[in-house]
Amino acid sequence: MGRMDNDGFMESIQIKPYKKDAVYSYTLGAFPTYELILGRPEAVIKVLVHSSYTDTDGIRALCERNNIPIEINDKLIGKLSDKENCFVIGVFRKYDCRLAEDKPHVVLVNPGNMGNLGTILRTIVGFGVYNIGIILPGADIFNPKTVRASMGALFRLNFQLFKSFDDYRREFGKHEIFTFMINRVNTLGIRDCPKPKLFSLVFGNEAAGLDDSYLKVGTSVMIPQTDDVDSLNLTIAVGIGVYEFTR
Amino acid sequence: MGRMDNDGFMESIQIKPYKKDAVYSYTLGAFPTYELILGRPEAVIKVLVHSSYTDTDGIRALCERNNIPIEINDKLIGKLSDKENCFVIGVFRKYDCRLAEDKPHVVLVNPGNMGNLGTILRTIVGFGVYNIGIILPGADIFNPKTVRASMGALFRLNFQLFKSFDDYRREFGKHEIFTFMINRVNTLGIRDCPKPKLFSLVFGNEAAGLDDSYLKVGTSVMIPQTDDVDSLNLTIAVGIGVYEFTR
Repeated sequence: MGRMDNDGFMESIQIKPYKKDAVYSYTLGAFPTYELILGRPEAVIKVLVHSSYTDTDGIRALCERNNIPIEINDKLIGKLSDKENCFVIGVFRKYDCRLAEDKPHVVLVNPGNMGNLGTILRTIVGFGVYNIGIILPGADIFNPKTVRASMGALFRLNFQLFKSFDDYRREFGKHEIFTFMINRVNTLGIRDCPKPKLFSLVFGNEAAGLDDSYLKVGTSVMIPQTDDVDSLNLTIAVGIGVYEFTR
Repeated sequence: MGRMDNDGFMESIQIKPYKKDAVYSYTLGAFPTYELILGRPEAVIKVLVHSSYTDTDGIRALCERNNIPIEINDKLIGKLSDKENCFVIGVFRKYDCRLAEDKPHVVLVNPGNMGNLGTILRTIVGFGVYNIGIILPGADIFNPKTVRASMGALFRLNFQLFKSFDDYRREFGKHEIFTFMINRVNTLGIRDCPKPKLFSLVFGNEAAGLDDSYLKVGTSVMIPQTDDVDSLNLTIAVGIGVYEFTR
């Protein structure tokens, strides 16, 4: 334990509350930390455990198997987490991915809310879509809030950031594009539209949706909804879209 | 304006930040306030407008048509809202409803999160389900956070609170019950299960789902999902459930 304590001390003085331009981030809570170690073991720097955490055997065994240091550090956990009931934190290096060329994609244009982004990651992995593109600017996929809302699903999928939709399209030209629009002109109902194997489902942001320029990039799709709401919530729209296309 | 200013002053000294046991609540923002006036005009006490709000003609005309006083009161708006960009607030009396006997229901057992509850209201109204039962304890449906997350959909539907699921069942005995379970035993896939006209879709809370006692109250339904997530988010599960049953 002597060596590990020293290393832990050395590293802990460098670890600070999350910033967007930092090279590392955190999983807050045992469940997303398990998902991190299972999904991206090579990215884990260390695991912090609170001295009052009772269920340490599982996490110890998993860390040992993956050569990941564990550190008991109540003070640092308190500093990194905004919630009282956080007993395990995973510290990991940010990493890049590339989307799979031969698998379905979800593409979010300028997603604004980290909670929504995380919920969307969890939802698409739940329905078997493991590739998501984000057109910038957009919510920070590595922010601990996004990671927590994803329940660790972030570590089960590939994500890729693009400066523009055209950049995405230049790199992945084979996918059939479906844009989810609230505009009722020139749109197909989601139940009637064709559902090819290699699809890319494109959604706008929470406030503005997709502008009319997206009517031209592919087939526009509408999820039927009553006139009694302005629109569906973005996470619900993505959930229904992915659910229908993976039937 | 003289009379209204005086009345406004009298009432404004009584109006305080929201409490669960208060007899009134608020809509924060122009959109939910419009929805309040359109859906439940008889419940509106008054509308507060910020002096820097530019689009007053529409809200003035709507209030006049419904005999609702308008008050310009920047200080009170600042006190009631936690966001900077809130320019319109509706003050309304809480009210009771009864679920329609001959229409589909959604029933939430102990929903824990106000944001989720509001999103669920918005979602079911979007799919044409206008009746929701809540088994207590549960998140406060009148809290301004719930109202805001619902985007005012609260005012488009009937809700009813019950002390237990048995109480709900005693009052509404004709609905065919479908319980959404994560338990994979004795459940039907949502795509295969029969979908009668008079259904009641029952969902557990965010953390625990429904316990096994709910296996006996009706047909248990499972939304197919990969093993790579613990479960779907509650709002997504309700969205898919209502979407499928209203096809």
